[in-house]
Amino acid sequence: MSLFKKHEALLTNAIDALHKRTFFAAYPEHPAPAIYGEKADAEGQEKFKASLNTKFQELKQEGATSWIGVEESPYTQEQLGVKYPAFPVDTLITRAKSAYHIWRKVNAQERAGILIESLERVKARFFEIAYATMHTTGQGYMMAFQASGPHAADRALEAIAAGYEELQRFPTSILWDKPMGKFNIQLNKEWHVVPKGVSLVIGCSTFPTWNTVPGLYASLITGNPVIVKPHPGSVLPIAIVVAEIQNVLAENNLDINICQLAVDTFESTITKQLAEHPDVKLIDFTGNSLFGSYLEALPGKMVFTEKTGVNSVIVDSVVDADKVAGNLAFSVSLYSGQMCTAPQNFYIPEGGIKTPNGVVSFEEFAQKIVDNINSLVDNPKAGPFVLGAIQNKNTCIRVLDAENLPGKVWLKSRSVANPMFKNARTNTPVVVEVNASNKDAFSKELFGPIVLLIKTKNTDHSIQLAQEMAIHHGAISCGAYTTDASVRDRIADEMALAATPVSFNLVGGIYMNQNAGFSDFHVTGGNPSGNASFTNPEYVVKRFTWVGHREPVPVG
Amino acid sequence: MSLFKKHEALLTNAIDALHKRTFFAAYPEHPAPAIYGEKADAEGQEKFKASLNTKFQELKQEGATSWIGVEESPYTQEQLGVKYPAFPVDTLITRAKSAYHIWRKVNAQERAGILIESLERVKARFFEIAYATMHTTGQGYMMAFQASGPHAADRALEAIAAGYEELQRFPTSILWDKPMGKFNIQLNKEWHVVPKGVSLVIGCSTFPTWNTVPGLYASLITGNPVIVKPHPGSVLPIAIVVAEIQNVLAENNLDINICQLAVDTFESTITKQLAEHPDVKLIDFTGNSLFGSYLEALPGKMVFTEKTGVNSVIVDSVVDADKVAGNLAFSVSLYSGQMCTAPQNFYIPEGGIKTPNGVVSFEEFAQKIVDNINSLVDNPKAGPFVLGAIQNKNTCIRVLDAENLPGKVWLKSRSVANPMFKNARTNTPVVVEVNASNKDAFSKELFGPIVLLIKTKNTDHSIQLAQEMAIHHGAISCGAYTTDASVRDRIADEMALAATPVSFNLVGGIYMNQNAGFSDFHVTGGNPSGNASFTNPEYVVKRFTWVGHREPVPVG
Repeated sequence: MSLFKKHEALLTNAIDALHKRTFFAAYPEHPAPAIYGEKADAEGQEKFKASLNTKFQELKQEGATSWIGVEESPYTQEQLGVKYPAFPVDTLITRAKSAYHIWRKVNAQERAGILIESLERVKARFFEIAYATMHTTGQGYMMAFQASGPHAADRALEAIAAGYEELQRFPTSILWDKPMGKFNIQLNKEWHVVPKGVSLVIGCSTFPTWNTVPGLYASLITGNPVIVKPHPGSVLPIAIVVAEIQNVLAENNLDINICQLAVDTFESTITKQLAEHPDVKLIDFTGNSLFGSYLEALPGKMVFTEKTGVNSVIVDSVVDADKVAGNLAFSVSLYSGQMCTAPQNFYIPEGGIKTPNGVVSFEEFAQKIVDNINSLVDNPKAGPFVLGAIQNKNTCIRVLDAENLPGKVWLKSRSVANPMFKNARTNTPVVVEVNASNKDAFSKELFGPIVLLIKTKNTDHSIQLAQEMAIHHGAISCGAYTTDASVRDRIADEMALAATPVSFNLVGGIYMNQNAGFSDFHVTGGNPSGNASFTNPEYVVKRFTWVGHREPVPVG
Repeated sequence: MSLFKKHEALLTNAIDALHKRTFFAAYPEHPAPAIYGEKADAEGQEKFKASLNTKFQELKQEGATSWIGVEESPYTQEQLGVKYPAFPVDTLITRAKSAYHIWRKVNAQERAGILIESLERVKARFFEIAYATMHTTGQGYMMAFQASGPHAADRALEAIAAGYEELQRFPTSILWDKPMGKFNIQLNKEWHVVPKGVSLVIGCSTFPTWNTVPGLYASLITGNPVIVKPHPGSVLPIAIVVAEIQNVLAENNLDINICQLAVDTFESTITKQLAEHPDVKLIDFTGNSLFGSYLEALPGKMVFTEKTGVNSVIVDSVVDADKVAGNLAFSVSLYSGQMCTAPQNFYIPEGGIKTPNGVVSFEEFAQKIVDNINSLVDNPKAGPFVLGAIQNKNTCIRVLDAENLPGKVWLKSRSVANPMFKNARTNTPVVVEVNASNKDAFSKELFGPIVLLIKTKNTDHSIQLAQEMAIHHGAISCGAYTTDASVRDRIADEMALAATPVSFNLVGGIYMNQNAGFSDFHVTGGNPSGNASFTNPEYVVKRFTWVGHREPVPVG
């Protein structure tokens, strides 16, 4: 059975889900033994440990000029010691160009079969990837499993489905038959999908697979060879994915350089050299705005970015202020605020928040936020696992700096002990009150567990500021709490104009940070937080060109 | 009956046609009395004549600061004397911004109904537009009717259909229902289409409606207000279209500034001022590469361009060299080579062209081209009408300059008398032989009736040069003649890699210059001749942003 036939039903369901946007998940998100096998977790952990302080030999790329690797675990603050093969940029490009002419001729069905098969192989390694993710990103175990495993695989499948559907949009060939009165003009016409060319996918340190696989699989399904350039600090999780793609390519007698891994180090980065290479036609990037904007401005490239944003919470009126504070406390604590969807700016009216039981004052609500954060992070059964560890030392500095912002510090950041890793680098959320007039203080992303409580004149003022931040500085998410239908409509409209999705009135076990493959667009592409969206049609159609040829029908 | 209901069947058929890409035309291309009415032509001509030397009072835009107009007929070489209302750039932008918030809230069905209705109104004025087109562009009557009338309307409808379909792609709202084991998380989700904002559509002098209406209608259907900035030399045809759009808007109690006309003069152009305005988010442009590339590089804009290209003909082997020469002679003479799809570089092997009756030498084929051009342009019943007139005096200079190219001049350009317009500015095609080694001579667009016969080593060399020109200098069309299936495959593949559509073996009454709405993509967007395509999915999806909001389903 062909790989396409093997996976056709899944692909069909995925395309259907893309349109319906109701709940769909191909890869179960719970790391349950009943789903993934009794030994899967232990074996995954074993495999991860076995990979430490060794060469990563799984890639099929030949002729490494050196072996490099600088990953360090935020939990142990020790080097992982995994070494990856390194290659000159010219070698990577030459191989990718050669692979282009092989991969572009593989038809869409075959490509889809191969790519979904690679996800099935990755699925068998979700636990190993989870441990690799923990020890490169600092994510807690559960997030590391879900984000780097099933959720990433779902996002990859989503990109495959979106791309596959677009490749089918126009017919391969038709008869064009134009009546001219006494005769017809008949042309045979044919349409070709021409992939743009070598694709560079640049990973980030915090979500090494989740943020990488959409661009990777979107480029591959549309026929482009990909060079994956992971963040030097988070290589192993995506290296496993690339290795599995190469395995399936090799089994199908295809050039494994259709998907290459390009590892570098902080000291000797190759990203610009790759990005500026004239043969690189597509670039996907997740990371800081400065570098993202530099990439977007490169001439002659199709660039897809997810950059930084200033995510807002607008608090107008609530049913239960404690539940709201509880939900938000979790949102800012989850992975220590190191999610691109984590909220930062909380806009709270100086007159307080309306509730069915009267107004909750700004100060009362601030205290509820603080109390809920403390109760979460101080709970030894929850806190350390929700917080995880801090990926980058600079984030710790930023958290400390936040205490010097001009305003009342409601809660200082501190470390919490992780029962499993005594050297874990941790920082609980810092909460600072900032006046709305002090716009400089909150007009930029302060990446990490940093919460700004911004005292506004009223909800209109809150909306205006949230919109302004999103339009000028980007926003990937927005939370809003209101029991007033007209206020809800206004927030929905004003934030839509700022291309920012709003989660209304979330309480309980669902958070504004989370978004679901096949349903929630991740980043909209319509504000400075990024020009691309997982996975809207634009994300795939820009990766290839439709070219039509025609010829008169031979006369009989 | 709503306008949507009135036009729903047409819209549905148009969407269907977009996918099938078989023959479809909503607007009959023949100016037959049986179709358009016995008096339509005469009345159209009368209306055109009545508009000369008057103010164009049809626009509903209020408060003109002056009345301007510098159009000149290439047939009479006299000023048309039509004056249009002029407005400060700030007024245009302010009005467009205000109109944005009205138009974006009109739903897709209503927008589609209004826009198709406007095409129906334009249809009633096809003849008037045809005469306006003749006397601004220099097109012959038949082309002026077809290109500015039915073919343009088809391209407009195509853009409406493509946009409308994309607006329907995702549901307005759904229930997202995620099983969590003991309970479900239920969210109501809603998706909003957020139009990008003020759209600027910059017209060209040679196809004032055909090249303008795709961007105009694509922006409008996706909810963006449009400012149409025509070429100062070709205003009247598109002014009529804008006036009819404003009529339908007014009848539906909508702000007529949803579609504004912004006229300027050669001396005081407002294009850059408009394009660089921070509130302009979308720009469509047809014209020269220098300005197009400047627009593409403007930060913070979504830009759609059709620029210049170097179109090639590859002659390898033919069934009938005379028929081929006849077809190509017509292609270079049609509207005096002033079509962006007209061929320029003819690659002919030094060893000649294979035919069933032996080889036709380079020289013999060159002579056939010359003979066929002469016999066409010297035919008083065909020549003047096929050639039309030269829009821009600079084209005449360029044609003369071509005689100084380093190579044998096979045919000099000359004027032909137009029986209806004694002052018509005409130039027949110039044909110059250039050696393939003299790449500088043929590595750029020489706009106008200029044919270069390039002597190559062999067909591989021809293909290589045609591909190289397309990749580095752009190409919108390519003609190829071969009776060898393997050569055909090679040309199809190599030119597809250069994102250039190929017309194979055209003889008789169909020409490589022509392309059909709903079937042929005009420009592919994949080479330097432009970054956009009439009308592929990318052309519409980039004009709006999908934004999704969500909220828990109320409990109980």
